[in-house]
Amino acid sequence: MNRIKIAQFGLGPIGIEALKLAAQQPWIEIVGAVDNAADKAGRSLTEITGAAALDGLKVSRDLEELFRETPPELILHTATSSALAALRQMRPALEFGVSVASTCEELIFPSLKAPQLVKEFDGLCRHTGARVVATGVNPGFVMDVLPVCLTAVSRAVDKIEVTRVVNASPRRQPLQAKIGSGQAPDSFREKLLDGRAGHAGLRESLALVAHAMGWKLDSIAEVGEPVVAGREIRTQFFHVRPGEVCGIHQRAVGLIGDAEKLVLEIAMYLDAPDPRDHILVIGRPPLDVLIQGGVAGDDATVAALVNVVPQLLAAAPGLHLPTDLALPRWSSGVDAASRKPRV
Amino acid sequence: MNRIKIAQFGLGPIGIEALKLAAQQPWIEIVGAVDNAADKAGRSLTEITGAAALDGLKVSRDLEELFRETPPELILHTATSSALAALRQMRPALEFGVSVASTCEELIFPSLKAPQLVKEFDGLCRHTGARVVATGVNPGFVMDVLPVCLTAVSRAVDKIEVTRVVNASPRRQPLQAKIGSGQAPDSFREKLLDGRAGHAGLRESLALVAHAMGWKLDSIAEVGEPVVAGREIRTQFFHVRPGEVCGIHQRAVGLIGDAEKLVLEIAMYLDAPDPRDHILVIGRPPLDVLIQGGVAGDDATVAALVNVVPQLLAAAPGLHLPTDLALPRWSSGVDAASRKPRV
Repeated sequence: MNRIKIAQFGLGPIGIEALKLAAQQPWIEIVGAVDNAADKAGRSLTEITGAAALDGLKVSRDLEELFRETPPELILHTATSSALAALRQMRPALEFGVSVASTCEELIFPSLKAPQLVKEFDGLCRHTGARVVATGVNPGFVMDVLPVCLTAVSRAVDKIEVTRVVNASPRRQPLQAKIGSGQAPDSFREKLLDGRAGHAGLRESLALVAHAMGWKLDSIAEVGEPVVAGREIRTQFFHVRPGEVCGIHQRAVGLIGDAEKLVLEIAMYLDAPDPRDHILVIGRPPLDVLIQGGVAGDDATVAALVNVVPQLLAAAPGLHLPTDLALPRWSSGVDAASRKPRV
Repeated sequence: MNRIKIAQFGLGPIGIEALKLAAQQPWIEIVGAVDNAADKAGRSLTEITGAAALDGLKVSRDLEELFRETPPELILHTATSSALAALRQMRPALEFGVSVASTCEELIFPSLKAPQLVKEFDGLCRHTGARVVATGVNPGFVMDVLPVCLTAVSRAVDKIEVTRVVNASPRRQPLQAKIGSGQAPDSFREKLLDGRAGHAGLRESLALVAHAMGWKLDSIAEVGEPVVAGREIRTQFFHVRPGEVCGIHQRAVGLIGDAEKLVLEIAMYLDAPDPRDHILVIGRPPLDVLIQGGVAGDDATVAALVNVVPQLLAAAPGLHLPTDLALPRWSSGVDAASRKPRV
């Protein structure tokens, strides 16, 4: 089997998990990883990940150093939520003709935050033969790709509403921190308002669905509020007292004139009851889709990232939206490696 | 706007509904229809469909007659459940380089019933520039395309189970007849056994999902049983007495060794309570997806057929599986017509 050579960019918790999952695939050959953190660069990948399969590989400080060793065909990128930062980080790979699959939230629909760079990077990719796409569970699946897929059986779509409720208590520390666990409501509300805290990518999901529906939205309104603990909550990482923040509640609405066409709502807090993803397609026929328990965040995100690899390499060179690629699916790998890049 | 020229093949209830839906799309221009039935050929399309927009168009007896008038770019085909019959019917179109989107159930995965023809027709399409795909709600979406899409967020997939419960009471007459309404259980059971009655396409859905998962099944087992009315049931079309058939219950299982990897179950009967589609992906993470009320059959089938047009014309020439195309979606048409064929 001709395996796809892959390197990991970013060795935070998600990056390490993605690297370990990728290393288990028979159709993937891991050739390296990049992280410029002082406590990671130069160290052994087996030491950082605990994966014996990565024996002999070291963490490179940057892409240039990685490319001097074994150039990969594709990079898994899990290093930032910012589209601007992500595109800057991956530029050396794209110039080299190396494709990138990313979990960068804003890159799900990059025209929103980096409109000037989209054309430039798409042109760069077409020139070098590289492909870029971002994916994940949210953004990247439950609030955008999946609702779009459901409308395949719609004669008419008037409005789409998605509600995601996540119980953050069993999740990793950075996520519990991101949602404000243990902070004072007033100061956290300010952070939510100016974008220093909260869930990234809600606007991007909304813009992506609008784009797929062919809707030109007149405006996108987003509001975010802390969820305040009514009782004491203890997790593995936080001890939250009554009156302190235990999570977030965000809502984005896309309007055409006065009509709400898209409503995306996410509530992510400690001890949230009845976690779920709920998609309503209001149209003909009406569709009411409930994912009971919700799609688990971290497992699903690294899965989406590894699964998109064959789809991305089979696409034409360029900057892609996740809704542009072939129907997504689990890449069991039986024929994944045969989907080689076509330039 | 450069509209896509489309003709309808088959003017049964689904064909008429598909034609009317297609005629409403700003990106579609209807150029004709084909049906060789004595009570249809030669008649006005407006007369048959009631759609004023089809004024001036007549029903052709066959594709050759249609092509002498205005050749379409694509044909909507709703004339048979048999893959062999469908391929024979569409051959003149494919030879002419005209693409076909079909609701033919067996064509969802044609290798099952027409393995010899798949290679031949794929070659023919590549030669002439035509594309073929089959779609629908079931087969074509709830039991195959949608479960495959859900596994996009799966690290591992061990087994997939789909249950579809349809209340047939409000449905069209041919469907109520197909499920045996009012027949005697013993004789209907025989018809189910030798394939003269029942839901077509369950095996095809199963084979399509297995193919997408990269699973080589050792066997497919299918069983079908009549559902017998416990009380009197009256619909617009049938009067069923206790002890008579009021529907069907079919189950297909795909095995690798002794392990059940795929279980598809459909219960379609008069007055069925709690209609729903329920998809379980047993794996990591586990996914439990409930479509409350189920996806309505006829509306969804014609929608899937019209929606697939831009996706099919954007694909390479050839015989396609519905899982091979780009992420499906509602074709609002804003840019649907710009997805012109690339040969």
